[in-house]
Order: sequence, then C-alpha cells, then structure tokens
Amino acid sequence: MVFSPRLQQLIDALRCLPGVGPKTAQRMSFHLLERDQDGARHIAESIGAALEHIGHCSRCRMLTEQDICEICASRSRDQSLLCVVETPADVIAVEQSAAYRGMFFVLMGHLSPLDGIGPDELGMELLSERMTSGDVKEVILATNPTVEGEATAHYIAELATRAGLVTTRIAHGVPVGGELEFVDGGTLTHAFAGRRTYD
Amino acid sequence: MVFSPRLQQLIDALRCLPGVGPKTAQRMSFHLLERDQDGARHIAESIGAALEHIGHCSRCRMLTEQDICEICASRSRDQSLLCVVETPADVIAVEQSAAYRGMFFVLMGHLSPLDGIGPDELGMELLSERMTSGDVKEVILATNPTVEGEATAHYIAELATRAGLVTTRIAHGVPVGGELEFVDGGTLTHAFAGRRTYD
Repeated sequence: MVFSPRLQQLIDALRCLPGVGPKTAQRMSFHLLERDQDGARHIAESIGAALEHIGHCSRCRMLTEQDICEICASRSRDQSLLCVVETPADVIAVEQSAAYRGMFFVLMGHLSPLDGIGPDELGMELLSERMTSGDVKEVILATNPTVEGEATAHYIAELATRAGLVTTRIAHGVPVGGELEFVDGGTLTHAFAGRRTYD
Repeated sequence: MVFSPRLQQLIDALRCLPGVGPKTAQRMSFHLLERDQDGARHIAESIGAALEHIGHCSRCRMLTEQDICEICASRSRDQSLLCVVETPADVIAVEQSAAYRGMFFVLMGHLSPLDGIGPDELGMELLSERMTSGDVKEVILATNPTVEGEATAHYIAELATRAGLVTTRIAHGVPVGGELEFVDGGTLTHAFAGRRTYD
C-alpha cells in the first residue's frame, strides 16, 4: 500500500531534517496529523518566519534578524579579541559557558576542497578586512579539532600573522569531569603536549 | 546569550516533534537555515497541504485525502474480515507484510480512562454499526499487546460477541528470526500457551 500523496510528501519533506530516516519521518507525520495539529501549524509558520527574517550579520556572519547581530552591536565587549568558529552553534556554546567576552567571526563551515568549500565560501575576505581594521589585537582559533578544522585554523593563522596579530588556538586536552581511562589517544597526546606548570 | 526571537520560536516549534529535545531542535533549526532552505520551505508547504487535505476515512477512520480511503474503496478485498488496529502506522505495517487482504478499522488510540480516552474517542459507535451491518463475519483484534491494548481488545470482543461475530486475536509469541534466549518472559508465556500441533 502507498500512503496518500500529500502524506507521502510530508514524510519525504521531514527526511531532510538531520538524523531523520524514513521510519522516524513516518512517525513524526502521524504524530503531527493525529495528535498535534496546532504544533504542526506552528512549525510551518515558524519555518516561514525564520526563512523570511533571519539572515547573516554583516560583520561576523552569525545568524541574526538585524543587519548587525547582538554581539557585534554590544558596547561592553572586548573589541580587541576575535574568536573564529565554524558554526552559529559554536557561538552559542561559547556564550553559554560565559568564558569569553570578546567578538566572534563565524565561518559557516570549514575548508573542504572536495565539497567545493574554499576561502570565498567561508568569508575569508571579510575576515581579512576585520583583521586589518586595527580594532583586533588577538585572533583566537576555535575551529573544531578535526582534520578540516585544523587545516582551516592553519589557513587563518597565516592571514593573522600577515596582519601582524597575536594568534592563539584554544587548548585541547582531557575534558573536565572526564576519566583518563576513556579518553582517546589523540586527546591524550594533546593533553601531554599542552601540559603546564602546576601552581 | 539568547537566540534571535524567530530562531528561538523555530527551535521551540520543532520540539513538538516526537523524540526531539532542545539540543536536537537547535541542530535541526541551524541545519534548515544554513544548509537546506529549500528543504525547510518544502517542510512548511507539506505540513500546510497535509493539514488542509488529509482527514479520516468515514468508514474506517484511516488517514486519507478522500471521503473513503483506498482500502475501503477497493473491490478486491474480503469484506467479511475486519481487522481492528490502534493507529494508521499499524495499517501500513500489516499492509506491507501482505499477510492480510480484508478490511480495517483504525481506533486512533486505545482505551485510557486516565487520559480521558473512552469508547467515544475511539469511534466505537462507528465500529458497532460496521459490525452489525451484515458484511462482517470475523473481527480480528490486532491492538498492541500492552495493558491498554488488551483492555481495548477485550472491550471490542464483547461488542463483537453481542453482534454474533467470530472474534479472533492475532498470535503473540517468539518473533521469527528472534532468539529464545533474548525473548522476555511475557512473550514466552504467550508462545507456550499458544503452542500448536507440529505438522
């Protein structure tokens, strides 16, 4: 048996969500139609509103509804620190930790030549302008510790050095609350290489 | 930091999907906005179309875009068999197994007095009418083998007996391909109680 065309269409549409396969999409569709039609209406409206109004900050490429995002518009932040991250979710994570009160730059990805993602797609020109504007003193590289993330960090470090800025990389090591026994080799290597005088 | 209002609204809206918590909703929202705006548009449109056009079959309560669903409208099915299931997903599962070529009745849930779900909410009146219409000879109870499903099956069995119909329950036992060692006690009890002459 086939589903009715519009039900099949809904199931197919939901499969574009990350982590949603055919069975989950089917369950979600039935849930929306049988138990939560108000919720379904809310999702449709929210997607419409988000697509229409949310764009990228013209300074840091963060998602925002204004031309300049809240962080870039803030007067109480340290304009001399610029933290470069891969995604808006990374900005949220750093903000929630309250460990940092400087500015951000969001690449919206990492260098990945095979997928056709080069410096242009990551807004490197905008980043270069920002580095040479005179406000920034230190660039903090907070891309992910993956092969692509490291390559991207390396590329940006060269830009920053050329602009005469201090360049730092966030520390990698054993997570707080983690147990040494269960930490992978790569992380342990970082943890030993990055050891500091105990005080 | 708070998300921009419309982004927060989208995240909240997606949380009404089954199995989606705050982190997943956030990931889905970023994915839709950053990587798949066409997919997002497709979801919004599909939900709208589904809500507008999909309703319940007036004979069996299955989800359909017509007044009568495909299965009820089919002429090649055995009208004397009526299989009662809890949800449209159950109909799909039975249909995909190709084990059954009779009619269905979809309760859209099970008896659950604490949640305010009684016989009226499950369309028992429509089911009674169907049983006494003269077409049906056998009612097959295919509600889930849970406490509520069994209670619902029991309730329907009484209606069917009153209408003078043969009433059967689908077999419960060890799943094909399953290993005895890993089957729970309740299922094993069913499997032994329901044993048949080997031939």
